This record gives sequence, structure tokens and C-alpha cells, in this order.
Amino acid sequence: GAGADNDLYINQAIVFIEDAIQYRSINHRVDSKSLWLYRWYYSRTCQWILSLTITVILALAFIEEPSSLTITSDVRYRLPAWNPPCGLTESVELLCFLVFMADVSVKSYLIGWKEFWKNKWLMAYILTLIVSFADWIVSLSFFCKESVRIRRILRPFFLLQNSSMMKKTLKSINSTLPEMASVLLLLAVHLSLFTMFAMLLFARTKDNQQDKEWVVYFRNLPDSLTSLLVLLTTANNPDVMIPAYSKNRAYSIFFILFTVLGNLFLMNLLTAIIYNQFRGYLLKSVQSSLFRRRLGIRAAFEVLSSLKETPASAQQSCVGVGALLQVLQKAEMDSRCKQAIMRSLKMCSCDQLSAAQFQKLFEELDKDAIKQHPPSPEYQSHFMQKVQFAFGHPYFGYLGNVVALANIISICVVLVMDADKQPSERDDFFLGAINCFFILYYLLEMLLKILAMGLKRYLSYPSNRFDGLLTVILLILEIATFAVYGFPHPGWRPEFMGLLSLWDMVRLVNMLIVFRFLRIIPNMKFMALVVTTLLDLVKNLRAFAGILVVVFYAFAITGIMLFKGAVVPLGNTRKKNVISWCSVQAGLIYCLLYVLSVHLICRWAKIYFVAWWLISSVIWVNLFIALLLENFIHKWDRRCQRESLSDIEYQRTVELMFRDVLEEPTEEELMEKLHQHPHLHLCR
Amino acid sequence: GAGADNDLYINQAIVFIEDAIQYRSINHRVDSKSLWLYRWYYSRTCQWILSLTITVILALAFIEEPSSLTITSDVRYRLPAWNPPCGLTESVELLCFLVFMADVSVKSYLIGWKEFWKNKWLMAYILTLIVSFADWIVSLSFFCKESVRIRRILRPFFLLQNSSMMKKTLKSINSTLPEMASVLLLLAVHLSLFTMFAMLLFARTKDNQQDKEWVVYFRNLPDSLTSLLVLLTTANNPDVMIPAYSKNRAYSIFFILFTVLGNLFLMNLLTAIIYNQFRGYLLKSVQSSLFRRRLGIRAAFEVLSSLKETPASAQQSCVGVGALLQVLQKAEMDSRCKQAIMRSLKMCSCDQLSAAQFQKLFEELDKDAIKQHPPSPEYQSHFMQKVQFAFGHPYFGYLGNVVALANIISICVVLVMDADKQPSERDDFFLGAINCFFILYYLLEMLLKILAMGLKRYLSYPSNRFDGLLTVILLILEIATFAVYGFPHPGWRPEFMGLLSLWDMVRLVNMLIVFRFLRIIPNMKFMALVVTTLLDLVKNLRAFAGILVVVFYAFAITGIMLFKGAVVPLGNTRKKNVISWCSVQAGLIYCLLYVLSVHLICRWAKIYFVAWWLISSVIWVNLFIALLLENFIHKWDRRCQRESLSDIEYQRTVELMFRDVLEEPTEEELMEKLHQHPHLHLCR
Repeated sequence: GAGADNDLYINQAIVFIEDAIQYRSINHRVDSKSLWLYRWYYSRTCQWILSLTITVILALAFIEEPSSLTITSDVRYRLPAWNPPCGLTESVELLCFLVFMADVSVKSYLIGWKEFWKNKWLMAYILTLIVSFADWIVSLSFFCKESVRIRRILRPFFLLQNSSMMKKTLKSINSTLPEMASVLLLLAVHLSLFTMFAMLLFARTKDNQQDKEWVVYFRNLPDSLTSLLVLLTTANNPDVMIPAYSKNRAYSIFFILFTVLGNLFLMNLLTAIIYNQFRGYLLKSVQSSLFRRRLGIRAAFEVLSSLKETPASAQQSCVGVGALLQVLQKAEMDSRCKQAIMRSLKMCSCDQLSAAQFQKLFEELDKDAIKQHPPSPEYQSHFMQKVQFAFGHPYFGYLGNVVALANIISICVVLVMDADKQPSERDDFFLGAINCFFILYYLLEMLLKILAMGLKRYLSYPSNRFDGLLTVILLILEIATFAVYGFPHPGWRPEFMGLLSLWDMVRLVNMLIVFRFLRIIPNMKFMALVVTTLLDLVKNLRAFAGILVVVFYAFAITGIMLFKGAVVPLGNTRKKNVISWCSVQAGLIYCLLYVLSVHLICRWAKIYFVAWWLISSVIWVNLFIALLLENFIHKWDRRCQRESLSDIEYQRTVELMFRDVLEEPTEEELMEKLHQHPHLHLCR
Repeated sequence: GAGADNDLYINQAIVFIEDAIQYRSINHRVDSKSLWLYRWYYSRTCQWILSLTITVILALAFIEEPSSLTITSDVRYRLPAWNPPCGLTESVELLCFLVFMADVSVKSYLIGWKEFWKNKWLMAYILTLIVSFADWIVSLSFFCKESVRIRRILRPFFLLQNSSMMKKTLKSINSTLPEMASVLLLLAVHLSLFTMFAMLLFARTKDNQQDKEWVVYFRNLPDSLTSLLVLLTTANNPDVMIPAYSKNRAYSIFFILFTVLGNLFLMNLLTAIIYNQFRGYLLKSVQSSLFRRRLGIRAAFEVLSSLKETPASAQQSCVGVGALLQVLQKAEMDSRCKQAIMRSLKMCSCDQLSAAQFQKLFEELDKDAIKQHPPSPEYQSHFMQKVQFAFGHPYFGYLGNVVALANIISICVVLVMDADKQPSERDDFFLGAINCFFILYYLLEMLLKILAMGLKRYLSYPSNRFDGLLTVILLILEIATFAVYGFPHPGWRPEFMGLLSLWDMVRLVNMLIVFRFLRIIPNMKFMALVVTTLLDLVKNLRAFAGILVVVFYAFAITGIMLFKGAVVPLGNTRKKNVISWCSVQAGLIYCLLYVLSVHLICRWAKIYFVAWWLISSVIWVNLFIALLLENFIHKWDRRCQRESLSDIEYQRTVELMFRDVLEEPTEEELMEKLHQHPHLHLCR
């Protein structure tokens, strides 16, 4: 009936508007039941369960058998790690697999059979699940004694497929690969030609005394290649040339040529290529998000305009205000936006909305929230007004900064004086006393500021929140110290009591004071710019960080599998340390160079580490530089405009940064895309 | 009289056109005698003498007393360096000073008294000369026994002031300094806060066993600072954290945070800032060169139009063709350009040239020479034509590449097989025999190519010249080997004869063969692009390289002066090696990190090396990356256009790269600038 149809249209509009808000694609089924399923699937609970499942399955590596998650990494001291009984982690895994199966079936159903066959990610998802499940069965049938577990390496795929940002980024990286491969090929040619040169130049002579040191670096082809590869990473820079240089200075020309060509030219060329490819990356991604948003809103308009209540006489299609209000009430969106849209809907007195008006209403979504601080309290007393003026003034804040600096300097002085003292000679009185004084000042500052600004206004500034929180923690720590050890007096160094020794307490307080000193950052213009750039970058980098996690996870698991038998705990403990540390701890790029330069481990390890170096250090760092350049240059260009608006604090997003460069999609583009929708069949 | 006036105008026009060709400023005296002096000063001989003088005075450091220019750098083996008698280097210096004095007086005279006071470079030049001369007198009066020689540090200034490109670049770098200083300040804050954290975190505990390793890195404030500074350069990356990590894995968070913030964010921010500043640098510099050229030509036009022979009736000022021809004949310029201009002058049948026509004539100067290869010889015989087709075909070149590759592989195989053999076991027969075969093939290839293409056409390709030269050298070496050691036969390893042993000869031949293999580069498209980018970059980098030489020279001299007494030859020989190598050998950036990480030398040395690291590694490398990005991105954008024209080889210059982006200066700008000329007073 018409009523059921109308309900369907309203529901479709709600879902399309939610899609627009979340920048989601609208290419999904649009019948009533599917819409209910769709909203349920994208509800917070469901997505939260999915994220939790992914976290759990990734975290399993930390407690599974060859893990080394103990406090110390030193094999000499550490206790054997806890080994979960067979079946425990496996049953957790099974639960995760079930969730993923539900996820993949819902996803496949929602996009429809036709689309499913085009979607390679979904196919890969199903394949991964099948392989993992088969591996799981093998694992159980061997009672967890099997040596190779393929499903572990596949785990990061679940993280990858769940984020559309990461998939997009991966596509972008993929398109850069051919050019990167060319430079890597060039690098390989460079390396091999120089290796041959080196072997010819530094051949063994009859005088064993003279070439004794050469045996270390250029004894045979693999050694020479390794030496020069490590030189390319500058890890063994002067060492490798010192023997030759002390024999004849002219030999240094070889090394200088190699370093300049390889390090300065070819490596930076890689940066240039990656930057060149990623120059438009952010803009393009923001542009496509904008298109999705406009498309969702337009789709909502189209379905609402086919509601039966609309007068058929109208030439142009339009939407009734009542229907829109109904949709808005049911749609899940930011309450500020919702209110703003409702307000402007009431202000426009018309009854029907055209497509342009409809689109314009939802532009509120793109706007940034202007954050207004609550007003200061208004005091009646003249004295209180003066107090308010004095302690609400920026100069009072500067005084606080000066005091914090004085505190830092005093800590520094004490540290320098105490540096060479034995722990038993140390007297904590001085440090305790000055800290006590400074913490009292911080407390006073906080209270006076709250008095002057009112609690609400005080808390509305992030810098005050940071400040206040640290002050409260410091106060609690100080009170706890006094409660346990009494007030400071000369020779204040009692024995260990309670949870922490007095010395540890004082150290902790001092660390917090150093940390609190960071409050000066917003007061320095350039620093503030840099810090906001960095924070923005962190937001934009989430997708990259996700991919990095995926890569590191895969590498760590491969490393654990490769080197499980190779490294004997009682043998070379230092080597073991380095490797386990390299493979589990992410983000430390150069450790492999260390490994390569210090130990000449087996051939497989070499290949593994070179691959890791290429991916983590060379490619990822360059990607990072490219993004940083992109972000920073945009920010910098806009700095002048921003300064005029510095009173108002914007909640900046990537979308807003590019606001004035973005192109609005045209009506034709939107309609063409809408008519291509696989499930929505518009009447016209 | 009118004739003398006319002569003066003609001379002025000649000089202005020469200024335009060389992109020189036209703000110099324009009376007859000054013009003669000006042309004499900018003649090749004079400029060559000046360059030679600068080279000589800079090269003096290599033979002056504390120099260490010996073959080996190892103090244990090396002979004492030759000490020139007192007065020898000093008299050479005096000669150089005289040349510089002449240079500065001519320059000052030519730009005129008024301009002189505005020119800070000239003032600094005179000041430097005075200080150097005073120091020279002090030196002589102490019989060369004085300890500090200020004039040595001042020497690179002579190089700096002689290049306008370098002065411009320096100005550019100077304008980036405030922002760089901000980031460096941020880096300093980062470093000091983390140092305090580290000292609090890794304080000495009562258990000496536990913190034994900490004493190495965080014993006191200077040690902690040094450790973290070195960590910032990633030179001691895993070492510094291994002890803490093996105590408690959580400590690694401190190091990861420090590295990510410092290395990944702040260091790359520096890159971003420098790139941002230098983005327009090349374009701006090319634009100002273009302005100078147009201005010079316009000035020539203006002076020629005031020649008496011009009919006064003409409304617009114009120039007679005869006068222009006279100027062209006397002006020094590229003969190709001169002929082209003459040709187009004859083709346009008019008698008078307007300003626009005049300007247009000289556009020939901006055009790139289209290089045409001489034609192949035409053979009558049918057989010879077939031979010509076969060996002139690109496939024959590819065959040559394949053979070269085969040669490389064979050398590689022999090297791998011989790697572990004692020199006495080695048999040079196999390598000698295959090299003999391959060199014969190379000779044959060269001769056949010359037969097919003709000698002139063959030599007109740079790749053929490279190829042919190496083939001839290889042939000569091979013949010399046979002459001395006879033809190869099994067991071909006679004792040492002549200049080089047989083994050295074979090695040299092999190295040349490896080098010859580079001929494959132009055959691979991407490689060719990269190589041309790099070559262009080298051209554009001359100014930067010059500044780098200046900085290194100053650092080297300062280093020699600082560490002359500090380093005892018989004491720590390794340290001595590193330092002398660091200070004299330029271009190896990371050696100081090595010095910092391995030895804890005195405080002054530390400051010196940190300054060097900042300037050479951080700032200069970032400048280099900025320029590379700029160049590469321009190149890359233009690649598609270029490919269509790939048949014609352009002689590319920076100016041409930016051709379509450059703005032509307007007539008003030119005339305004001309009327500001301090010495030329135009009638109108």
C-alpha cells in the first residue's frame, strides 16, 4: 500500500542521510528488511563488537606459544613465559572466526550478489577465512604441536579489510609501486656495480698484513654486498672505509662516490617520487568523501520526492518539510547539526524544498563547530572584580610559566649536583622542600584561575585541563609522600615504606613537573603551529599507521617463525635479544642495521632484514615525509588567513583544511551515479 | 663630436648585449674608458686569472704546516709531511692578495662611488683583505711561528664573493634561517626535556649490578645530552636502549617516543620548512635572470636609437640595421647565435627596427640548440648497404649490451670462484682469455659501427664516444699486458714486471669493463630520465656545492686549529685518524656521529662536531632534498610533453625547463629600471 511505500521511502532517506554523514557508499540493498539489517550492522554496538574481535585476534600473538611477553627481555633473567593450554587460544580464535563469518555474510548480502562478484576485498576476506579455518582444524588435529601456523600471518588482513581508509591508502601505495620499483632496480644496479668494483679494488694481496682488515668487509660476494648495503644505510659509515683510508687516502673516493650516488641521490629520489605521487592524495581522498556525502543527500532527496503526498502537479520534483522533519528525527546524527538544520528549516517558511534548498540545508554538516567558552562569573563586589581582572589576565599565566621554568631549573641543578653521589649519600630534603613549595604555588594558581574564570570556563580550555589534572595528581602524590614519610627535614631519607620508596616518589613528582612544563607550548606561536600540524598529521596518518601495524605484525610473526629454532636461548643471548626486540617492538627502524652490521647471521635472516629495512625504513619513512610535506605546506599557506581568526577555536578536520580547493560535484554527475545504483530504481 | 658619440653608443650597445648574454647587471659606468676596462675585466683571461688565484689560495691549506696530505692517513706508517720553508706560502699569498686588491679596485671603480657604499659584499671584501693582510704581516714578523692564523678561516670568502649565484643562494638560505631556528629551538626543548626525563628515569639505584650499564649513557647531564643527541642522529640507536630494554621492556617506550618525536616529526619538519621556502627558489632565480637579459637588450636598443644617423622625424624610436650589424660583429657571443641573428636580420627586409623587433631578434639567445647528427655515409655497393643496415640497426647495439652483460657475469663468476683462493694459487689464465675475447668483440663492434655510421656521426653520440674511448683504453692495456707478460696460457702468473703486476693489469681491465657497462643506461627509459634529472640537478647545485665547499673549508681549518695540540700522534691513533679525515675530507656526513658515539672527546670538540652535524648533515642535506624535489617534480610533469620530441636532442638548461612558466617583463618595468641606471642618462 501507499503507507508501506511511504514508510519504506522514509527509511531509505534516513539511511541515505546517515550514509552521507559517515561518508559511506550508498550502493547497498534498499528494501525494508535490508535497511533494518544495514542500520543494525552499522550501529555502534555491532561495529564495536567487530573492532573488539579484530583486536582480540591480533592480541592473541602476545600470549601464544613462542611469544616473549615478559617484563625483562634478557633471557638470562627472565622467567619462562606462560604457555596457555592447547585449546584455549584456539577456542577464542573459533569465536572470532564466527564473528568474521557473520560479518562477511551480512556484508555480502547487503551489497547484493552482482556487486559481490566485483568486490575483490570480500572474496579475499572469504578466502582468508577458509584458509584460516582449515589451518585451525589442522592445528587442533595435531594437538597444537604443528610447527607452521599460516593463519597467524593472515590475521592482520582482518584489520586491513575493515577500514575503507586503509584500503584506499593501499590502492594509492599500489599505484606508486612501478616507479618505486624502478628506483629500487636502479639502486640494485648501483649496488651490484659498486660491489664488483669493490671486489676488484680491494682484492687480496700477497701481503697479509696489509689486507688483514679487508677480509672483514670484502672477502667474497655476499660479504661485499652486505658491507655496501649496510653502507647505504649509513650504519657502518666510517668503519668500513677506515682500513682502506689509512692505507691510501685515494680509496676514500670510492666510498664518497658510492655514498653520494646511493644515499644522497637515489634514496632522495625515492622521496621525490613518493612525494610526487602523493601530492594530490589527500585532496583526492577528501574530494571523493565530499562526493559520497552529496550523493547520499541527493539520494535522500530523490526518494523523499517520490513520496505519495507530494503534489504531482509540480514541474520540479520537491520534498515536503514534514517528511524531512520526520527523517531528521529518526536519523542518527550529531545533535548540534540536527538542531541547526531544524532551526533553518523552521526559518524558511516555505512548505516544499527544491533539490538545491535541500542540499543547502545539509551544508551544516560540513561546517566546523565554533567552540564558545562559557562566560566568566560576574562578581558584584569591587574587590572581587579586581581579583578577577588580576588573575584572569594573560600575565598571570605567563607568571605561571616563569614559575614552572624556575622549578625545572631547580630540578636540573639538583640533578647535576647529585649526579655523582652514591644513593646512600643522597639527601632528599632540598628537592622535597622546593617541590613542596612549587606544588603549593601550582595549587594556588589553579584555585585563583578557577575563582577568576569560573569552573566551567576554566575547564573549557584544554591547556587548563592539562594543567589542573597534573596539579591535582601532584598534590595527591605529595600528600601521600607526607603521609608515609613525614614532612621534609634535613637528612630526610628513611627506609623503604609502602608501595614506592621516597626517592621513587620524588622522582615521579619531578617527572610530572617536567611534563607539566609542556604547558608553555600554546604560548609560542611557531610551536603552536608546529604542534597543531603534528596533531593534524597524526589524524591523517591513522590509515598509514594501520597499514604499518599490518606490515609489522606480519613481519613479526614471520620473524618469530623463522628464528624460533635458529636462536638458542643459552647461546648468543645478545643476538636473541636484538631479534626478539626487533620483531615484536614496532617503530624502531634502524635496529636491523645494527643486526646486519654486528652479526653476520644466516642468509635467510639477511633477506628478511633487508626486506624489512626496505619496507619499514625506506618506503614507510618516505611516505611519512610525503604526507608531512603535503600537510605542512597546506597549513603554512593558510597561516596568514588563520591568524585573523585566531580568537575563534575551530575544531579542524582534514575536510575543512581543503574547503576552498574542493570542487562541488555537479547535478549531472550526482544523477548519473544515482541511476547507476544497483538496487535503487528511481521512477524518472 | 658626433663620430665620437656614435662610437661611444656603439660600444655601450656591445657591452649591454654582452651583459644580456651573460645575465650580468648593467649598472656599471658607461664612459669609453670604463667600458674598455669593463670588457677587459670580464674577458676570459682576466676571469681565468681570478679563478686561478682563488683556487691557489684555497689549495694552500694542503701544503701549509699542519696539513696531513700524505698517501696514508695512518700516523703509524706515514712519513712526516713536507713542510714548506717560511716565506714560500706567504709570498704566494701576497701575490694572491695583490690580484684581489686589483679585483676589488676595478669592481669598485666600475660600479661607481655611490653604488659602492650600498654594496655590502664589496665592503666585506675590502675588510677581509685588510684583515688578511694584517694577519700576514703578523705572521711574517713572527717568522711563521704564530699559533693562530685568522686569514686562513677567511679564505673561503674569496670564493664566495666571486660568484653571484652563490651570493643569491646565500641570501635565500638566510631568509629561511628564522624558521629553521624555530625548529632547532623546538629540537633543543625536545632534547632538554627528554634529557631530564632520562636522568630521572635512569637514576642510579642501590643495586650496582643493575645500573652498571647506565653509567655509560646517563651518568650526568652532559653525558645524557650527548647520548640523546647521538640517538637523534640514530648512530647509537639500539645500543643505548638495550640495557634498559633487557631490564624492563616498558623502558623502550621512552626511546620510541623520543625517536618518533625527534627523528620522524621534528627532523622531517625541517625538511618540510626548507622545501616550502625553496619551492619557488629556482623559478625566481631564473625569472630574475630573464629580466637581466631583457634589460640588457633594451638598454642596447635605447643607446643605439640615440645614434645621430637615425632620422629624427620618426615618432617611435628605432634602430638602424647597419648599426646593429656593427654591434653584432664586435660583440662576443656564441657563433651559432650570431649567425642566426644575422640571418634573420637579412631576411627581414626593413631598414629600421622597432623595440619589439629588436627584442625578437635576440630571442635566438633563449632558444636551445637543436643538435643534428651528421648523416651516415652513402655507399654505392649493394653489399655495403646491407652491411650498413645491419650494423647501424639498434639491435646491433642491443647485442653489444648483451655481450657486455655476459662479460660482467663472467667476471663476477671468476671473482666468486677466486674469492677464497690465496694469491699464490690464483691462475689468471681464464680471466685473461675471456677478457681478450671480449675486448676483441668490443673492437669489432666499434669498427663496424664506424663503418656503418661514418666516423663523424659515430662521434656525435655521447654514448658512442664513451664506448669508443673505453674500448681504445682497454685495447691499449691489453696490448701492453701481452707485450710485458706474453699471451695468456694455463698457469699464466709470472712475477712482477714493469709498472703493474699482471694481476693489477687484469684488475684494471676488469674495472674498466664494469665501468663500460654503464652504456646500458640510455637504453632504459626510466633510468635515462633519472640520470638526466641528476645531471640537471648537478648543474643547478653548483652554487650550493660552492657554499658547501666554503663551509667545509672553514670547518676544516677551524678543526685543524682546534685539534692541533689536542691530538697526540702516538697516543690514540684511531681518534687522530678519524678527526683528520673528518676535517679534511668533505662530503662524508656521518663520521662525526661515529666520533661522538665511540669517543667522548673534550667539550670543545663536541660543540664543534655538533655544529658540523647541524650544518652539513641536517641543513645541507635538507636543502639538497628540497632542490631535488623541485627539480624532479618539474621534470616529471613535463615528461609526457618531452616524449613526443624524443628524436631531437635538446641541450637543456635550467632556463629552458621553466620556459612556459616564465613571465616576460613588461616595457614599463624595463624602462623604469633603465631610468634608475646610475650612470646611463637617457635623453627622453
